[in-house]
Amino acid sequence: MTDAPGLHPDTGGPGSLLDLRTPCALVDRAILDRNTERMAARATRLDVRLRPHVKTHTCVPAARLQVRGHFGGITVSTLAEARYFAEAGFGDITHAFPFPMAAIEDAVRIAHKIERLTLLVDQESTLEALDAFCLSRGERFSVMLKVDCGYHRAGVDPRGDEGIALALRLASSPHLEFGGILAHAGHAYACRDADEIRTVAAQERDVTVEFGARLRAEGLEVPEVSIGSTPTIGLADDLEGVTEVRPGNYAFHDVFQATIGTCALDDVAFSVLASVVGRYPDRGALIVDAGALALSKDPGPVHVDPDCGFGVVVSEDGRERHGDLRVVSLSQEHGVIRGAGIERFPVGSRLRILPNHSCLAAASFDRYRIVNGDEIVDEWRPVRGW
Amino acid sequence: MTDAPGLHPDTGGPGSLLDLRTPCALVDRAILDRNTERMAARATRLDVRLRPHVKTHTCVPAARLQVRGHFGGITVSTLAEARYFAEAGFGDITHAFPFPMAAIEDAVRIAHKIERLTLLVDQESTLEALDAFCLSRGERFSVMLKVDCGYHRAGVDPRGDEGIALALRLASSPHLEFGGILAHAGHAYACRDADEIRTVAAQERDVTVEFGARLRAEGLEVPEVSIGSTPTIGLADDLEGVTEVRPGNYAFHDVFQATIGTCALDDVAFSVLASVVGRYPDRGALIVDAGALALSKDPGPVHVDPDCGFGVVVSEDGRERHGDLRVVSLSQEHGVIRGAGIERFPVGSRLRILPNHSCLAAASFDRYRIVNGDEIVDEWRPVRGW
Repeated sequence: MTDAPGLHPDTGGPGSLLDLRTPCALVDRAILDRNTERMAARATRLDVRLRPHVKTHTCVPAARLQVRGHFGGITVSTLAEARYFAEAGFGDITHAFPFPMAAIEDAVRIAHKIERLTLLVDQESTLEALDAFCLSRGERFSVMLKVDCGYHRAGVDPRGDEGIALALRLASSPHLEFGGILAHAGHAYACRDADEIRTVAAQERDVTVEFGARLRAEGLEVPEVSIGSTPTIGLADDLEGVTEVRPGNYAFHDVFQATIGTCALDDVAFSVLASVVGRYPDRGALIVDAGALALSKDPGPVHVDPDCGFGVVVSEDGRERHGDLRVVSLSQEHGVIRGAGIERFPVGSRLRILPNHSCLAAASFDRYRIVNGDEIVDEWRPVRGW
Repeated sequence: MTDAPGLHPDTGGPGSLLDLRTPCALVDRAILDRNTERMAARATRLDVRLRPHVKTHTCVPAARLQVRGHFGGITVSTLAEARYFAEAGFGDITHAFPFPMAAIEDAVRIAHKIERLTLLVDQESTLEALDAFCLSRGERFSVMLKVDCGYHRAGVDPRGDEGIALALRLASSPHLEFGGILAHAGHAYACRDADEIRTVAAQERDVTVEFGARLRAEGLEVPEVSIGSTPTIGLADDLEGVTEVRPGNYAFHDVFQATIGTCALDDVAFSVLASVVGRYPDRGALIVDAGALALSKDPGPVHVDPDCGFGVVVSEDGRERHGDLRVVSLSQEHGVIRGAGIERFPVGSRLRILPNHSCLAAASFDRYRIVNGDEIVDEWRPVRGW
């Protein structure tokens, strides 16, 4: 698909950024190490199991860094990811997406390969279909109940009775193993600063722990109380009652996280290397070869910074922030950069762009170049699709 | 990457939509035929050469439909596309992106395989570097000058003197063949209706034709005056002075085009097949398994329809519009649908979603299923990357 070299074309060993054709995806190894070590240490300090989400990078080496010092379980968002990580030796995988019964044969195949594949339900009809399938086929799945802790996307209402009934029904099935409850505070991304995130983190914890207590009051065993997002777990003070956390984005971080106060811009491990292909002083703009297909059209944290644009510009070696340069608009292959100092960048200059949303930007690429400053030290290939 | 079947798993022949795992990309063959025939006929009627852009679909069979009845030239936006289409037998390719000199060796390889690879410049430094390269290597390229016809993205100012100087410099080089001038009215996407589009279309034509006249007044031959976008070419009344047009999106069309008046919703050939994985009557929402990685986060025509969301919902067979159902929000793998009538769709229901921007949504998939109603008649694989 692309013939740009990953390693040096002559030596086969590590090359330099100069060998790379743009646009391409860079991962700063030192920052990735630091981000993953910090979160692992946080989870240990908070006395919870870390089951990192791998959907941000979807590659094995980054997942291995995420699970260091913990039990090795991971979270995925697609069955393609589940299959890929199962084949790579990950033995305990939670598919954290409302389970689609049309994919049950895929799930069976994956579950047979590993120690435990946990599925997620919040719909009675899915639960009944899964139970009937397991009965007829002699299969058995670990199943967690998805709880709405305030994001109002998926999940049962933790204050209503339907969730209780669903959990009881789940736990009563001889073919299903009730794995516990799972919540995700996606609404943490609507926060404007660290204080607001801490409030949402407390809500995510409290709502989920209280729902667990309601289930226990019904006589149910609740093996796992699982919560998490990068903002809430990154800033939570106390996770009393929680057993497991599932942050994911923190491995790469991004401009969104930095803007809402989850990390600093210096913590962003993922960037897109781009080349200036046009300089237009009269219009105050540069054009680079990283457009919507390299950065994604994620609008970013406009609730905090209405002018955030689509990415922050740093130097080719990643060490210097270029004033207030921003990617201000995107078309399919063009990125437009504005800000003070564009005259410093002649055509052919190369820049790193820190994206608004690293999960979506990373998904644009079929490989990541792992870099240490301007040296390429490795190349990783993510899984894509469904 | 995915093991979902393209053709029927038993017969190897065409299957039905029921065989498909979701999310997946569908292309309605009858609509694609109609869209490409209409544009080809329009270009003939307007007495211009049609050099369709292929960046919307990036696959050979769709490009072949686009060039039917015309001279066979195409437009691409990346060198990966140029390479792919050159290998498939397309002999006259225009790379309509400000040329990055770092990719010159790729361009040489492609140019040697085909009749003509035309590059685009609007920067003096690129022109000088290209000229010096061709001199030192004995190469020769066809080069067009990019003109800003009002979009203010790339291109020389057609009313200033720099563009004239650049064209004269280009035409004076013995190593470069001046291919003419090229403009793209990307600002047509800011229009709110067909009348506004016709005004932009007239501007795109007039500005470019007038710049061509200025060059001719300097004694230059201007072989090609090339303009085009799907809205402007789809609605232009008269292209006097224009020799070539380069629309692309019209092959698939999308909700954006339908909203600004370029086409009807019934003309949208591309859709994403998705499954309902959650139904939440209390929240008035469905969740489907087509999220930001399947539909893209393109915000759509919010200047016309602030509530446009991220996609319009139609029935699984594509024949029925489901009232006012819209994808209202997206996260990585979740799409949230709201609107009257969600109770009609139990978990497991399948829906087609017409995306805001088919170029970006199509780029999320490694294959398209070509369908006739609910029958799969073919499978096409696009090229990706750079």
